[in-house]
Amino acid sequence: MKITKDLYQSSLALLTDFYQLTMAYAYWKSGKAEEEAVFNLFFRKNPFQGGFTIAAGLDYVIDYCRNFHFDEQDLSYLGQMKGKSGEAMFEVAFIDYLREMRFSCDIDAVEEGSVIFPNSPLIRVKGPLIQCQLLETPLLNITNFQTLIATKAARITLAAKGEDVLEFGLRRAQGIDGALAASRAAYIGGCSATSNVMAGKLFGIPVSGTHAHSWIMSFDSEIEAFKAYAEALPDNCVFLVDTYDTIKGVEHAIEVGKALREKGKEMLGVRIDSGDLAYYSNRARQMLDEAGFENAKIVASNDLDEHIMFSLKVQESSINVWGVGTKLVTAYDQPALGAVYKLSAIKKEGKWIPKVKVSQQSIKINIPGFHNVRRFYKNGVANADMIFLENGTNDKKEFLLIDPIDPTKRKKVGKDWDSEVLLKNIFVKGEKVYQRPDIHTIRENTKANLAKFDKAHKRLVNPHIYAVGLEETLYNLRTSLVLEAKAK
Amino acid sequence: MKITKDLYQSSLALLTDFYQLTMAYAYWKSGKAEEEAVFNLFFRKNPFQGGFTIAAGLDYVIDYCRNFHFDEQDLSYLGQMKGKSGEAMFEVAFIDYLREMRFSCDIDAVEEGSVIFPNSPLIRVKGPLIQCQLLETPLLNITNFQTLIATKAARITLAAKGEDVLEFGLRRAQGIDGALAASRAAYIGGCSATSNVMAGKLFGIPVSGTHAHSWIMSFDSEIEAFKAYAEALPDNCVFLVDTYDTIKGVEHAIEVGKALREKGKEMLGVRIDSGDLAYYSNRARQMLDEAGFENAKIVASNDLDEHIMFSLKVQESSINVWGVGTKLVTAYDQPALGAVYKLSAIKKEGKWIPKVKVSQQSIKINIPGFHNVRRFYKNGVANADMIFLENGTNDKKEFLLIDPIDPTKRKKVGKDWDSEVLLKNIFVKGEKVYQRPDIHTIRENTKANLAKFDKAHKRLVNPHIYAVGLEETLYNLRTSLVLEAKAK
Repeated sequence: MKITKDLYQSSLALLTDFYQLTMAYAYWKSGKAEEEAVFNLFFRKNPFQGGFTIAAGLDYVIDYCRNFHFDEQDLSYLGQMKGKSGEAMFEVAFIDYLREMRFSCDIDAVEEGSVIFPNSPLIRVKGPLIQCQLLETPLLNITNFQTLIATKAARITLAAKGEDVLEFGLRRAQGIDGALAASRAAYIGGCSATSNVMAGKLFGIPVSGTHAHSWIMSFDSEIEAFKAYAEALPDNCVFLVDTYDTIKGVEHAIEVGKALREKGKEMLGVRIDSGDLAYYSNRARQMLDEAGFENAKIVASNDLDEHIMFSLKVQESSINVWGVGTKLVTAYDQPALGAVYKLSAIKKEGKWIPKVKVSQQSIKINIPGFHNVRRFYKNGVANADMIFLENGTNDKKEFLLIDPIDPTKRKKVGKDWDSEVLLKNIFVKGEKVYQRPDIHTIRENTKANLAKFDKAHKRLVNPHIYAVGLEETLYNLRTSLVLEAKAK
Repeated sequence: MKITKDLYQSSLALLTDFYQLTMAYAYWKSGKAEEEAVFNLFFRKNPFQGGFTIAAGLDYVIDYCRNFHFDEQDLSYLGQMKGKSGEAMFEVAFIDYLREMRFSCDIDAVEEGSVIFPNSPLIRVKGPLIQCQLLETPLLNITNFQTLIATKAARITLAAKGEDVLEFGLRRAQGIDGALAASRAAYIGGCSATSNVMAGKLFGIPVSGTHAHSWIMSFDSEIEAFKAYAEALPDNCVFLVDTYDTIKGVEHAIEVGKALREKGKEMLGVRIDSGDLAYYSNRARQMLDEAGFENAKIVASNDLDEHIMFSLKVQESSINVWGVGTKLVTAYDQPALGAVYKLSAIKKEGKWIPKVKVSQQSIKINIPGFHNVRRFYKNGVANADMIFLENGTNDKKEFLLIDPIDPTKRKKVGKDWDSEVLLKNIFVKGEKVYQRPDIHTIRENTKANLAKFDKAHKRLVNPHIYAVGLEETLYNLRTSLVLEAKAK
């Protein structure tokens, strides 16, 4: 069984766009393959019209890079490809070159569970042009999706205000890994458990679940079904009460709960999966309390997302545990993050040449040079992020940050403020130097990191925009490169 | 390397919701595990507000079922699970039972590439209750996603009106399998090629691609970059012309195209990835034609979907080849199909008892009994689908079809009309009896199947609704069961 963790420990070198291979070949033919380059992976807008993003996927990226190689099956597939003229697409010497290729890049990245914002590098790759290029597609695939889902999960967890959120999305997820990677990212973002047993086994995430409507329907009556379930799994009794009639379902749950109690076991709760969740959860709460089941939880599910949960909270529903599926694991209202990976500098004759790609859309112009991000804090609260040139003028007493789109938006931060650099060394010349935290630690970090931001940035709609600016030197470099390119 | 095809040949038994396992245990404890049941997998609405759906994923389902078993790693994971009281969740005898479990169901399903509609069974599983239940989640995961993407691809291919559509979605897809399964389903739906090299290798789908903006940016000038690419890959020259200025880019492409021609090679075309695609494609067409490159293609990309493509066609753009990514592989405007899997009958003392799940939402009431679908044709054009009881009264001269939601919508079809039954035998008692067509045949079948429907059903927005009805006997059975359940 080779999937996710195991899977990434095999060759996935062909998990890339074909144009990466044609470019790789052309770089190799032009003698440019080993030129040194820097690429940055970043996104341009927080997803879900929100005010923040949670980084995830680095663990997969590390496995991908560590195991990056072309195996004989890959090479023979490439070797037999033909061009329009019927000749081999790639020379044998190139296939041999790929056979010998070993991952040798420097990678710096923000840690999983970090709070991040548009335009800042999430991953920076420095190394031979050909390797940087081949890594583009898999790094985007992994990072785009897990970051998207971790962010969605963080929003949903915020809406739950400390109550448990269970991730139930496997049946509607986009493929097998669309489910597994989503379960992982959802846990990082703050969910408490998953229904996906394989994700539990592979990642050590808690799993959760009791029974479906079909359990009830396979018996002649609901009460009979509840009794049989309680007999088999007296420690795991959350009864699904809405197969026929929710109120009668709660009555039946109470009846079986009482019988359980006589045997020294306690019913954990009831689940409502349809109808008016605010109304039925309140009715169920009242009935359970009156029957002496004050500790029984009320689990709700049925196409929930952060907005419906927010509304249910406003309506003072009695839901204690939130089952979230489709809307979470597919990031339903925005199913792609849209992160990109852009060349920002290339070394020519020992000197780094910064690069921009001009576009008619200002938002699409990338940030040039070898840059990093520093986060400044004021009284322990995150105040602004500064994108800066690592080899730039960083010895000023204060820094002027300029918004990359609207240059009239400016902010000063003091050099002596508490601050931290967000990109951490992950690989140096292909060797891993980073110690990976376990998934439970990452989940705790997400929570701790979010706590450092003012709640205005965490509002679900119309959040207050967190300041991210280019340090003045970098801003000026970028402006002059863009003007120069446009003048050509 | 174990992924998709290979991967499904290993144990994926834990790729299921935990509640399937707790129910499995409770069925086993109650002595109901081996009772015979029938479940149907179906969806309730065509995706994308469209008029049809294309079935896909059966090939994966077959691999999943053929290789269904719990391996020792799975069993040891389940064996160590604890309930609230700290006791083992599952008895050792149950773990032993799972170890011995072999797939023994009958499966009937519509073939991949079939045109299908809401409420009709897409897959019917008959077998021991415990197995039917464990299969629910993986069958939904696989079928929901691939059917969704094949349908999206078919819509996009229809919008392209016979021109090639290239699938470019890997970097924005939802995980690794979210990309691979999407590439497969997109090809089934009608795409001509994928950028995903691994999908090419695994499924035999044609792959396609040339170069990115970073190729241009790694050189001092665009013309130099085009020349170097043409030198390396003279048979595969589609030049991306919008890195700096699209019009100048086309001029440069023409210059390099002329040099190529002198060497006996032909430029394939240009690609435009930003800006006004209608305007620039027309300008590029004119320039290419005037320079004698009438056969050079114009490839367009940039967040395309069927609606933008429709609009570009209306504007008489000169695009010949359509590169589609994010919007296709994530099914951006509706990222989940929402198919469900419902118990429809259970055998008690040798007799099938039909089952319904009542709901306050009429659309959520399932269709009971052991049923199938028959498609009727009139003059070679698909006219109506009839959902009918396999053991019902099927010897009438004509059949009355009744809409499951609005019983005043009725239609009669003649028994002597051309017709076909849509569910085919896939497995009989766990043995595969179905010969799988290759992926190229499936793709051709999709096209041929769509051609049997009036174009009004294939309209991208506000399609004419295709008639799908319950045969009168089944309609009456369902109504009486619902009334009976509500009366309880």
